Parts: sequence; structure tokens; C-alpha cells
Amino acid sequence: MSLNRPVHGGNVVWAASVAGCSPDRLLDFSASINPLGPPQSAIAAITTHLNRITLYPDPRYSELRKHLGRFHQLPPEVIWPGNGAAELLTWIARQLRKCQSVYVLTPAFRDYARALQAFGVPIQPYALDLLDLSKLASPLPLSPNPGSGLLLNNPHNPTGKLWRREEILPILDRFEFVVIDEAFMDFLDPSEDQSLIPLIQDYPHLVIVRSLTKFYSLPGLRLGYAIADPALIEQWQHWRDPWPVNILAEVAGIAAIQDDDFQRQTWDWLPPTRHHLLEGLRSLSGFDPYPGAANFLLVKTQQSVTELQEWLLKEYQILIRDCVSFPELGDRYFRVAVRSQAENQRLLDALGDR
Amino acid sequence: MSLNRPVHGGNVVWAASVAGCSPDRLLDFSASINPLGPPQSAIAAITTHLNRITLYPDPRYSELRKHLGRFHQLPPEVIWPGNGAAELLTWIARQLRKCQSVYVLTPAFRDYARALQAFGVPIQPYALDLLDLSKLASPLPLSPNPGSGLLLNNPHNPTGKLWRREEILPILDRFEFVVIDEAFMDFLDPSEDQSLIPLIQDYPHLVIVRSLTKFYSLPGLRLGYAIADPALIEQWQHWRDPWPVNILAEVAGIAAIQDDDFQRQTWDWLPPTRHHLLEGLRSLSGFDPYPGAANFLLVKTQQSVTELQEWLLKEYQILIRDCVSFPELGDRYFRVAVRSQAENQRLLDALGDR
Repeated sequence: MSLNRPVHGGNVVWAASVAGCSPDRLLDFSASINPLGPPQSAIAAITTHLNRITLYPDPRYSELRKHLGRFHQLPPEVIWPGNGAAELLTWIARQLRKCQSVYVLTPAFRDYARALQAFGVPIQPYALDLLDLSKLASPLPLSPNPGSGLLLNNPHNPTGKLWRREEILPILDRFEFVVIDEAFMDFLDPSEDQSLIPLIQDYPHLVIVRSLTKFYSLPGLRLGYAIADPALIEQWQHWRDPWPVNILAEVAGIAAIQDDDFQRQTWDWLPPTRHHLLEGLRSLSGFDPYPGAANFLLVKTQQSVTELQEWLLKEYQILIRDCVSFPELGDRYFRVAVRSQAENQRLLDALGDR
Repeated sequence: MSLNRPVHGGNVVWAASVAGCSPDRLLDFSASINPLGPPQSAIAAITTHLNRITLYPDPRYSELRKHLGRFHQLPPEVIWPGNGAAELLTWIARQLRKCQSVYVLTPAFRDYARALQAFGVPIQPYALDLLDLSKLASPLPLSPNPGSGLLLNNPHNPTGKLWRREEILPILDRFEFVVIDEAFMDFLDPSEDQSLIPLIQDYPHLVIVRSLTKFYSLPGLRLGYAIADPALIEQWQHWRDPWPVNILAEVAGIAAIQDDDFQRQTWDWLPPTRHHLLEGLRSLSGFDPYPGAANFLLVKTQQSVTELQEWLLKEYQILIRDCVSFPELGDRYFRVAVRSQAENQRLLDALGDR
């Protein structure tokens, strides 16, 4: 809660103060949020059910679990809703205490280390080769110590690397417990989906974490869910308070996952727009973007990113995600969300001016 | 997450299914929520800032802490916002691990035991004398073992008992750590306020927990805050995820605490309405209500409350709070919120028909 420069993405309050504008005026490439959202269906659900804020949420979250279960063709008992994926990862870190140590692929979302350290879980960093992401191909070359856990982010943040299902499956049984954070998996067209969710009932030591806030542009509402063995969920439920998900997130989430049109629009929008942004960045001198499977791109550069970030804020009110919170990356990498074609062009034009 | 009868209050989904009506049609006396709310100012803030759901909350919650600090004439650094008081109590239970055991006055809100047990904190039950609540007068007759903690609920739920500041102060230093859950304190007129908040900076081993959802009728939004030593807050902040409070709860809370008119209306409404309900219950044969300082009343009865509860649901779509989750009370006590004069009369009429 220190008042220094924020270490997490998405702190538009800080960025707006640097840019000298209101937070609404920022062009935010730092948070990897779907620019097509939020879906009108979710907004309508909030507006319609606004009077429900006077009610406590159902502590069983029966409706939400039923709909999420249906969405994945799974029984509601395997669904554990949470106050954003980050809340769920906190409690799952507590489960990982049972492991001798936990392999975390680095660079990694900073909050993984926070959650694991909060419960005293030893972290075994496993560095991605940033020069050749394909080196991590079939299967992951991991020979863990007995009793180890694995926390894998797929697609991986911030590189955008996607592991195929058949690359992950062979290593699952080498671990005591496996957590796959699929916060960005829903951005993949179903024909390219590599989620392990369909296999959840075959692996009681596997848990998948999903977010509803990135694809549906609802990060302010906080909504995520874990998919796991019901016996684990029953135990975890005693660890946290009975009402973690607010009632507006619940109704918005139920509406959003049923919005086929919004999902289709996003899947149609992303690949060509991302490709255009990737090619645009490649065409600029001094910027080396990684191809990524999700709705963001990691970019390597020769210049200081903290200086570049400040310059973009002050000159263009554009916010990029520095990678200072990823110690393996430091000041020579940044991440940008894929936004609309016009907004991406504003970023490219600004970077071209540098 | 079992599908049995709920153990917590506020489960209107279950109650509506028994009553055979929609949840909106229930007359809910089980959740102790201010019937005058939510304030229009809070609703307006939500509607105005609905577009902010596409933004991550500020992980420092600077605005919210600033306003809450101002509300209590305290610096923002002592404020720790949370996803409802229940989330905060969960993390504070982790802090209580440092105590040999924690005294909990019983009957107690069931989630206290859940939170303490989740972190393996031994509980030392301390029974309130339900025949004579005044026995616990100046000071509380507690001679704790060294290294003990205290978790006190003031006003106390479900009895409504209020301890005066000077009753609590003499015992504070007997404990290693003291948590005062003041979730219902804001229902007291400022002239009768017994909060320890003004003294927080004198007692670094004291934490106060407040809720914004009961007084302002926002339980579906989830919003509470702890007031504690900044060094403790700094540590706790590493235990949980960076965005526990959703952005709509944040804007609604900021608007609500500045709504002097709503506060004044509530303080004017409660005492006479509660008195009328108390007298009405006393006048019925077989019901023995306790005088309470908060917005609810505990009632002792000779009949089975689970049967009475079911009968009220089926015949009148009225939901009362059974006390089965308080083992010291069991099936002969129930709790009712103070609602509007007309609604309270519907309850009295229904009970009169029994």
C-alpha cells in the first residue's frame, strides 16, 4: 500500500497524474482488456439487477456455478467462483503448501510470487528462453523433484506463448499438484483452444484458473473461477469468507458467458488486428515484438522502457506496460494490449515519433 | 458449498424456494440491512461510474481510503478496505495466529470460528449470560491467559448488547491483540457512539472492523474496512490479492459516507421503530425479545424456530433468521431486523396468528 510507483499493471490513477489528464482520457495499452467489451448483455444485466445490491449474494453461488458449468459442459460442483483470478490464486497458493516447492515459469505475473510467499511456499523458478520460445516444445523439459508443484500460465503472460494440450499432458503426472492459469485462454478461437478444462475430471491434482474480466472487459467488477476436484473446493471453501463474489459481477458474468455474438466478434477481431500490430511494431526500428497467442504483445527494445513509458504518457497520453515487475525482463521490455485498429495505429505513430 | 440448508443468513434463494415465490417477493427480516437504503447518492454514483468497470481498481485504493480517513478524522494510512467485513476478518484471523488462543464471546457470528479455524487459531469461548446481559458490565470480567487475543463484536450480534467505551478500555491491555467488530456501530446516533476508532492510534495492538453494507444496504456490493496500525496493514497487504474491492463498491461507498441526510434519516428512524417492534413482540404471548442497540432484535420463544421459520415463509413469505448456527442458542431463538413500521407490523401480525 506504499504510495510509490505502482508495481502492478492497470494503475491508471498514477499514469493519469503523469500524463496530466483524467484517467478516462488515457489510451491504456497496459491492461490486457478486450476493447470490444464490455458486452451490452453484461451492462444490461447490471442495470436490470441493480436493485439486488440490497441482498447478500447466495453463498453457494448456485446460479453462477450452474451457468459456468454449462458453459464448459461440466457439473457445477467443479466450479469455484472468486473475486477475480487473483483471489483464487491466493487460496490455491495455500493448497500448494503441500508441495516441497513449486515450479513457476519466469518471467511470471508478479502476484504469483506474492501469493506463494504469503503462504511460505518455496518457489523454483524455471526460466523461459526468451531468445527461442519454441525450445520449450513437446513436452516441457521439466524433471521436477518429487513432491513438486507446477504453476503454469497458458497462454503465458507476458510472452504470449501458447502451449498445446499435448505438450502439457505428458508432464502432468510428474507433479504433486498442477495449477494452470488460463486467464487469457478464452481469447483463442474455439478451434485453437488448448485449455485443459475438458480433462479436469481425469486429473484430481489439477486446477484451472480462469478470469472473466479480461475477455469481457470487466476488471473493475472482479470475477474469476477455478475448476477443480469438488473435494478440494469443499476444503478451500472453509478458508475464505462466504460472499467473495459481488452480486453485480455474478449477473454480469452469467450474461456475458451466454453472449455468443460478443464471443464470435472478439475471435474474429483479434487475429488480424494482432497481426497488423505485430507487423507494425516489426516495421519500426528498435522494436522487436514477440508473436503471441493472446490479446497482448511483448516487445523488446534497445531503449529504457521507463523513459519511453513516461514520454508516451506525457506526449500522447498513451500508457504501455513496463516490465520492471518481471525481474528477468527489466527495463528493456514492454507489453501492449491489442486494441482497436485505429488505437493501435496511434500507438505505432507515437512510437514512430520516438 | 454443500446444497443443504444454508447456515448463514441472507440466503434468500433457499428461502424463496420454500416460500414458493421469487426472492424479490420475500419480506426478509433475516439480514440486518437498513430498510431506508441504499441511499440515492450511492445508486447515482454506481450509475455515473458504470463505465469504470472496464478499469482495474486502484490497488492502493487512494480515493476510498482518503474519504474513509476523512470520515473518521484519521489519516488514510490506517484504513484497510476489504471485500466486505468477512474478508477482512479472514485475514485478521491470520494475524491472530500470533496469540496463544483467542477469546470469542458466544453466541458468536459463525464466520468468526470459520476464519479462526482456517488458520488453526485456538478459540476460547466466553459465554454471554443470556439471562442477564448486564452482568457483563464495567469492566468485562475477563482475566485472560498471557498471550491471548480478544474478538469482540460491539454492538453484539445476535443479542444487540452494546458495551460502552469505558467498559472495554480497561481490558484492552490484558490482551496480545484485540479485534473489535463494529459492523453495526454506525446504526447508533453519534451522540451514543461507543466506537473505539477515535482511540486507534493509541493502541497498536487494536484493530476495528467496520462494514458499509449494513447501514447503507449494500450487502450485494461487498464493502468493509479495517482500521489498524499502518505497519500491520502493510504486512496484511502481502497476504491477499491487489484488487479485493470492486470499483462500484468503491464509488458507492465514497458517496454513501458523505450522505449526511441519509445518515440522519437512519438515526432518526431507528430508535422509535425498534422500540415499537420490541413492544409489539413483548405484547405477543410466547415471545421474549431482548432490548438491543443495533438494527435487529433477538427473540426467545418456546416453540421450534425452524418450524416457525418454515411456517412464516409458507404462509406469509416472511423470512426470519433462525439461530441454529449459534450452538448456544439453537432452536428456541430467532433474530429479526428492524424494518419499516408497516413491515414490522406485518411480522407482528403474522406472529400473532401463530
